[in-house]
Amino acid sequence: MELLEEYIRKNGAVKEGNVLKVDSFLNHQMDVKLFAAMGREWKRLFADAPINKILTIEASGIGIACVVAEAFDVPVVFAKKAQSINIDGAVYAAKVQSFTHKRVYDVIVSKKFLSPDDHILVIDDFLANGCAVNGLLDIIEESGATLEGVGIAIEKGFQEGGKLLRERGVRLESLAIVDAMDAATGSLTFRR
Amino acid sequence: MELLEEYIRKNGAVKEGNVLKVDSFLNHQMDVKLFAAMGREWKRLFADAPINKILTIEASGIGIACVVAEAFDVPVVFAKKAQSINIDGAVYAAKVQSFTHKRVYDVIVSKKFLSPDDHILVIDDFLANGCAVNGLLDIIEESGATLEGVGIAIEKGFQEGGKLLRERGVRLESLAIVDAMDAATGSLTFRR
Repeated sequence: MELLEEYIRKNGAVKEGNVLKVDSFLNHQMDVKLFAAMGREWKRLFADAPINKILTIEASGIGIACVVAEAFDVPVVFAKKAQSINIDGAVYAAKVQSFTHKRVYDVIVSKKFLSPDDHILVIDDFLANGCAVNGLLDIIEESGATLEGVGIAIEKGFQEGGKLLRERGVRLESLAIVDAMDAATGSLTFRR
Repeated sequence: MELLEEYIRKNGAVKEGNVLKVDSFLNHQMDVKLFAAMGREWKRLFADAPINKILTIEASGIGIACVVAEAFDVPVVFAKKAQSINIDGAVYAAKVQSFTHKRVYDVIVSKKFLSPDDHILVIDDFLANGCAVNGLLDIIEESGATLEGVGIAIEKGFQEGGKLLRERGVRLESLAIVDAMDAATGSLTFRR
């Protein structure tokens, strides 16, 4: 998606340790006009899919998912990190290893909000090794819902998450795929 | 706001310990049509304020803030809980006590995204004792930005957060104020 690539080139920064900082528009400060354009693009890409719900994971996926959900006219459910006293009753749970925070945490979704009748689009800001998305896919499988696809803003194409999802037959639509980046020069190569 | 009160009456549940569960539409599953209506209402209420940015706090405030930001045509910044390796450089920080999780945590905002030129609307899902909002107000004050007001979806009017903010002269617009609730009967009383 050309607009997103422009944002990344103009406002992103490549840092040591394979970190792509996009915190001025994607995951700390958030440009909701960009998110609305992303929603229109995913709606075009998944036009034939009977999506009735969007699933994401806290925290940075939530803003994108909510603006994108307006394009699909469906509700959002977000997987919560760790147990909250406000979640009672039964939950679906999965373990996720965080690339950013270097630790494993539990994510949970109340059983009230996912059922075999649901057709789910998973939305998240980043795909690297795929741990967060795989946790959400485990939860969807446990619920009996149908996975219609996964929409990612920025895929790190040099890490294996996207490749493994495509090999499993998951319909994955990443709006920008970074195939290489260099912290020394700040250069970025997008997949064509 | 009548629509929000209807949602609360129809889909909310009063639980022991002053918990109002609204997880089917506000803070776990999220009804983005409701959020858009809330955005229009706050835009009407703050029509005269020169708001150029919305500030919220992860996680459940983010979805509301992003949809509401579309009505104001401004970006969102969310305060992050605890330190992330992806936040480098200087941050504004405040301590927040969580009513839900019974613990104190640090919230941070990168100094890049708040400055004395900014006119801020704070948005959050709940106001009870006001700890989260007060943490955000501390951060705004530290940054030199101007606080234009605070928009809350549901204020628990029987806790002191709202009263203390109004006494300080903060322009607070809560779309629903619950003055009493009873877990035994499930009854709810809204402020008129």
